[in-house]
Amino acid sequence: MEQAGHVDSEEIRGPILKMGGEVESALSYLGNLLEKFDQNKFDQIHQIEHQVNLLHVQIDEQCVEFIAKYSPKATDLRYVFCISKMNSDLERVADQIINISYFVKEWHEKGSQGSKEKLKKMLIVTSQMLGQSLDSFIRKDTQQAGQVLSMDDQVDGLKKQFITDAIIEMQKQPSLITSYMDLITIARNLERIGDHATNIAENVIYVQTGADVRHKGVKEL
Amino acid sequence: MEQAGHVDSEEIRGPILKMGGEVESALSYLGNLLEKFDQNKFDQIHQIEHQVNLLHVQIDEQCVEFIAKYSPKATDLRYVFCISKMNSDLERVADQIINISYFVKEWHEKGSQGSKEKLKKMLIVTSQMLGQSLDSFIRKDTQQAGQVLSMDDQVDGLKKQFITDAIIEMQKQPSLITSYMDLITIARNLERIGDHATNIAENVIYVQTGADVRHKGVKEL
Repeated sequence: MEQAGHVDSEEIRGPILKMGGEVESALSYLGNLLEKFDQNKFDQIHQIEHQVNLLHVQIDEQCVEFIAKYSPKATDLRYVFCISKMNSDLERVADQIINISYFVKEWHEKGSQGSKEKLKKMLIVTSQMLGQSLDSFIRKDTQQAGQVLSMDDQVDGLKKQFITDAIIEMQKQPSLITSYMDLITIARNLERIGDHATNIAENVIYVQTGADVRHKGVKEL
Repeated sequence: MEQAGHVDSEEIRGPILKMGGEVESALSYLGNLLEKFDQNKFDQIHQIEHQVNLLHVQIDEQCVEFIAKYSPKATDLRYVFCISKMNSDLERVADQIINISYFVKEWHEKGSQGSKEKLKKMLIVTSQMLGQSLDSFIRKDTQQAGQVLSMDDQVDGLKKQFITDAIIEMQKQPSLITSYMDLITIARNLERIGDHATNIAENVIYVQTGADVRHKGVKEL
């Protein structure tokens, strides 16, 4: 039986892992939605976000209560801060997913014009990043967390290439501008999901090694 | 003399207030840069971001040390969590400012085409939001924090209107697409700065009243 008050106990880890699972499901539904609009999937995503918001409020409160109750020290205390930060990141990923769902809906309503292939690739990589960042948290695996950081460059590259291509297409066919603007917004929101997964992975490395891997180089735009 | 270990002491509040001041300065330089490109101002913004990154690492560590040393309870403990979250928000505001500085530079290099008037207005409102959110933290003033939340709607409205107008201009003159894409990216980054100021204000309200004002309605896109 796990020790009460330990950071590995279900008391503190359970809700954040549930939240992570919910966000992963919503992201997977988004992939279906990008392929073909489906009102049920759209509604399910919004129901998940509602659940995530409830967990967000609950987890922040739990972190404060956990510290007040058990006075964890050193690595354990950093772990609780890590959970509090993951909580913010996951809630914002859910917000991004909601934003994307509206733009995907609009894009389909306008006739699904413009190429979405790079976005599908971006969605796959960001889903992997999110999954691996959560796994690295569960396993306290800094190597896996490190892999997430390198995948972020791939997502940024895909977004830049997508926007460059989109600008060329918009210049050739101005009638496609509104459709491409929707797709560009989706690309930017996917990139932000990748950024949040990166934040989670960086926090995992920080808790486990004490090394702060943030701010090691020039920011990628 | 202030009590050591109290959350109102300089020990815990000093660095985050310094960070807030640095970010406000960078945002004000950005206003100058949007008006007319100036390499010195551009460099100053980047130097400030470097300072902000150092403070970011330092403040996270200080929050953990403060709790381990003084074991604050209830509102005081929430206040330390609030500082940790402000720390993340302010660091991301600095990131947005850096992103914007590059796009402002590019936009000037391309000939400063397209109307920037709404962006100037957005910059003024987001600067006010950031200033007021920091003030509300210092004064523990929930009414002022509430004003920040209502200003966020104004920023979102300005951004939407800017993008709608930009799409019309791009359709009329496809040669302006690349310039407008820079301006749209600037608008989106300014909106994100407003979001971070909103997060800070929401945290101030939460610490002072225990009321969680997040997730009270449908998200604004």
